[in-house]
Amino acid sequence: MSDLDAVLGSIDTNLDASIERLFDLLRIESISTDPAYAAECKKAAEFIVEDLKTIGFEASVRETAGHPMVVAHHDGPEGAPHVLFYGHYDVQPCDPLELWDEPPFEPRIKEMPDGSKQMIGRGTSDDKGQLMTFVEACRAWKSETGGLPVKVTLFFEGEEESGSPSLIPFLEANKDELKSDIALVCDTTMWDRETPAISTALRGLLGEEITIQAASRDLHSGFYGSAAANPIRILSKVLSGLHDENGRVTLDGFYDGVPETPDEIKQMWAGLGFSESEFLGEIGLSLPAGEKERSVLEQVWARPTAEFNGVIGGYTGEGFKTVIPAIASSKISFRLVGTQDTLAIRKTFREYVQNSLPADCSVTFEDHGASPAVHIGYDMPEIQKATAALKDEWGKDTALIAMGGSIPVVGRFDEFLDMPSMLVGFAQDDDRIHSPNEKYELKSFHKGTRSWARIMAALAE
Amino acid sequence: MSDLDAVLGSIDTNLDASIERLFDLLRIESISTDPAYAAECKKAAEFIVEDLKTIGFEASVRETAGHPMVVAHHDGPEGAPHVLFYGHYDVQPCDPLELWDEPPFEPRIKEMPDGSKQMIGRGTSDDKGQLMTFVEACRAWKSETGGLPVKVTLFFEGEEESGSPSLIPFLEANKDELKSDIALVCDTTMWDRETPAISTALRGLLGEEITIQAASRDLHSGFYGSAAANPIRILSKVLSGLHDENGRVTLDGFYDGVPETPDEIKQMWAGLGFSESEFLGEIGLSLPAGEKERSVLEQVWARPTAEFNGVIGGYTGEGFKTVIPAIASSKISFRLVGTQDTLAIRKTFREYVQNSLPADCSVTFEDHGASPAVHIGYDMPEIQKATAALKDEWGKDTALIAMGGSIPVVGRFDEFLDMPSMLVGFAQDDDRIHSPNEKYELKSFHKGTRSWARIMAALAE
Repeated sequence: MSDLDAVLGSIDTNLDASIERLFDLLRIESISTDPAYAAECKKAAEFIVEDLKTIGFEASVRETAGHPMVVAHHDGPEGAPHVLFYGHYDVQPCDPLELWDEPPFEPRIKEMPDGSKQMIGRGTSDDKGQLMTFVEACRAWKSETGGLPVKVTLFFEGEEESGSPSLIPFLEANKDELKSDIALVCDTTMWDRETPAISTALRGLLGEEITIQAASRDLHSGFYGSAAANPIRILSKVLSGLHDENGRVTLDGFYDGVPETPDEIKQMWAGLGFSESEFLGEIGLSLPAGEKERSVLEQVWARPTAEFNGVIGGYTGEGFKTVIPAIASSKISFRLVGTQDTLAIRKTFREYVQNSLPADCSVTFEDHGASPAVHIGYDMPEIQKATAALKDEWGKDTALIAMGGSIPVVGRFDEFLDMPSMLVGFAQDDDRIHSPNEKYELKSFHKGTRSWARIMAALAE
Repeated sequence: MSDLDAVLGSIDTNLDASIERLFDLLRIESISTDPAYAAECKKAAEFIVEDLKTIGFEASVRETAGHPMVVAHHDGPEGAPHVLFYGHYDVQPCDPLELWDEPPFEPRIKEMPDGSKQMIGRGTSDDKGQLMTFVEACRAWKSETGGLPVKVTLFFEGEEESGSPSLIPFLEANKDELKSDIALVCDTTMWDRETPAISTALRGLLGEEITIQAASRDLHSGFYGSAAANPIRILSKVLSGLHDENGRVTLDGFYDGVPETPDEIKQMWAGLGFSESEFLGEIGLSLPAGEKERSVLEQVWARPTAEFNGVIGGYTGEGFKTVIPAIASSKISFRLVGTQDTLAIRKTFREYVQNSLPADCSVTFEDHGASPAVHIGYDMPEIQKATAALKDEWGKDTALIAMGGSIPVVGRFDEFLDMPSMLVGFAQDDDRIHSPNEKYELKSFHKGTRSWARIMAALAE
């Protein structure tokens, strides 16, 4: 029996114990965006470090100005490549809590009518479940062979869901320690339940929050209605003015740096058998809402967008209150592609908002981070090796796809460590990440672990 | 000493005890719009009934499908007119709670730099403080003369701040008991701190809540951004489309039944010495936001308006979440004048919203009540008598004004009891009703009580 066969056998045999370790991690409420959960974030980092030490990693919790990082090292054979595996142990908030069928931090396995099994709970898919696929692959290699086939650095962040404020300073301060031959990132999806995928393009992300102030206090709409500026009315004008009737973003220069998708890429996508009506139908919709005359795949993979992620103002409780509020605010994000300039777009956006206000109203802006789009060459040798390893596990060719979401760390690795990334993930599109009843399929977890075991062997060759 | 002089003296002497009684009522958290406070509403009704019995009223708590009514009767001299005094014991919610300098249900007196005193707390001005001015006037009449100069029915509602759902059924069921010669309503403001006012026109009110549903669940904006409909974007379009660039409401037929203000009324208003810049400056604004080419007084007294009272959708907590929410909603109110048809406007509004949606999105509507505008004749003999009584108390002519707010009960008294109303109030424009740190001036309370003692005497003549 080859080493790899023994490792895969160990993964199969010890699956239940792997699930138990993941569930212990899932029970930690590591919501990074809400300061109330800071202690839970630290607890998650410490939990992982203790676990990694049992595998034989030299692992430590590394403090930052925000939530801590986890860094761990394990040597490989002489001359073997050095890979850095990235994941994040923080999770999204859980509201609206009432839409969860079970408490979000009490993970459980649910058997589906088709016999498949889902692990349900916040962070199962994004990203604790994915993160642990690599850790479990390392554990199996170590237990069966006493070592790892490649030199491994693990790098786990606790602020991915809150804009990664500590990431750049940490990369700059620990450049020599973290710099590896390639970063492996497990925070993406498969093409479908049978087909593995490697993502070679990621949209960038620009997050902004605007708060519009009109009167100096909340007003009674009977006394002041129509004479006093209403910040919800102003905010609505600002938001509704950001798209034209064709779904295009109206900011000056917004499309500078947006490339046309090459025909060969469009042809490759056409061969994926993607169904627009199924994609939208699964979420209760039927009409693409983006730029007219662009396909849905183009809209989510290759075109930029402005989305409103939150809005609040005035009285929002039960019943009615005839108030004109003093303030109204909105959280807005832009997904970016190509070489769109995040800072130029932020500046243009803020000018647009400022210019939309009556002279006696004001606006404050909050910066929720910016990362440019990332494009990875299809021809990297590591992608060829990983593709072969994935075919051995899944029996199907790997789909080389674009990704609508942003994984800013990939751009940071490139910029600050001059290190390329390879994005291999085992999540499914319907995993409800960031939503109630988030899940990760047991098959994703099990075969994802096996996939990493294979990829590690392939990269060592 | 005349009876009236004795009564006024008694009011002065017993002012501290009057304040104590009012504060006991203010401590009851009778928020009608939130079902969690139902028991507090009932407690307020019971508190008032017990107090009225000590004065000699035949008083009772009267159950309804919602919060109870208080009805109390006291006879007057043979042949004296029968007045019904209306007020409401319920109050507005207190959010945002963090903007209150002190807890809203712990009333206190604050001495201002100019030596005046303010009673601060939820309901001080709207309407518990105003309601108690009349009760205290009755108490003084009774204690000094053993009776009241007119026959009095007191009628206190507990659902004024939540659309008065029980009012019409109660009026219809108790028509004979409640029908009086005139209703006195104390829920309005003075012209300024020195000048009493009687309101002769009130805008109507139409309350609507819309909830727009796009996808069947919250989505990750990375996966779905731009392809999936965003309900905040749709809602923004709906709201921003309700006004044109001149501040006019765009709904078809909205201005049907809106009369032009007669020149003689405009001239009377011009004589009031109203300052637009002071009115707006007091709330931190400088530019009228209503219909262009209408004065601020016209905008708030004589013109209809659409106001957005609340909006919510998506993630609104700290930090950022790249979600595309499934729903977004808004509370919207229309202030109406003249003979604008509330039901026709509701229908047109709902059609407008429905027609603004993409075909794969939906909307639900919640009805938050409707009441038409009310106009009261300047020439009612009771207004003449009250004007004289108010001049005796304040030393100034009474301003006959319009009111931007809605007091639906006035229209209901007219429609269901064929009973005219006279609106005399002692609140100030800056009382922050419906807002944090609501206040009622001690002078309003004290001289308001004295004013009612005088008006009762005047009406008896």
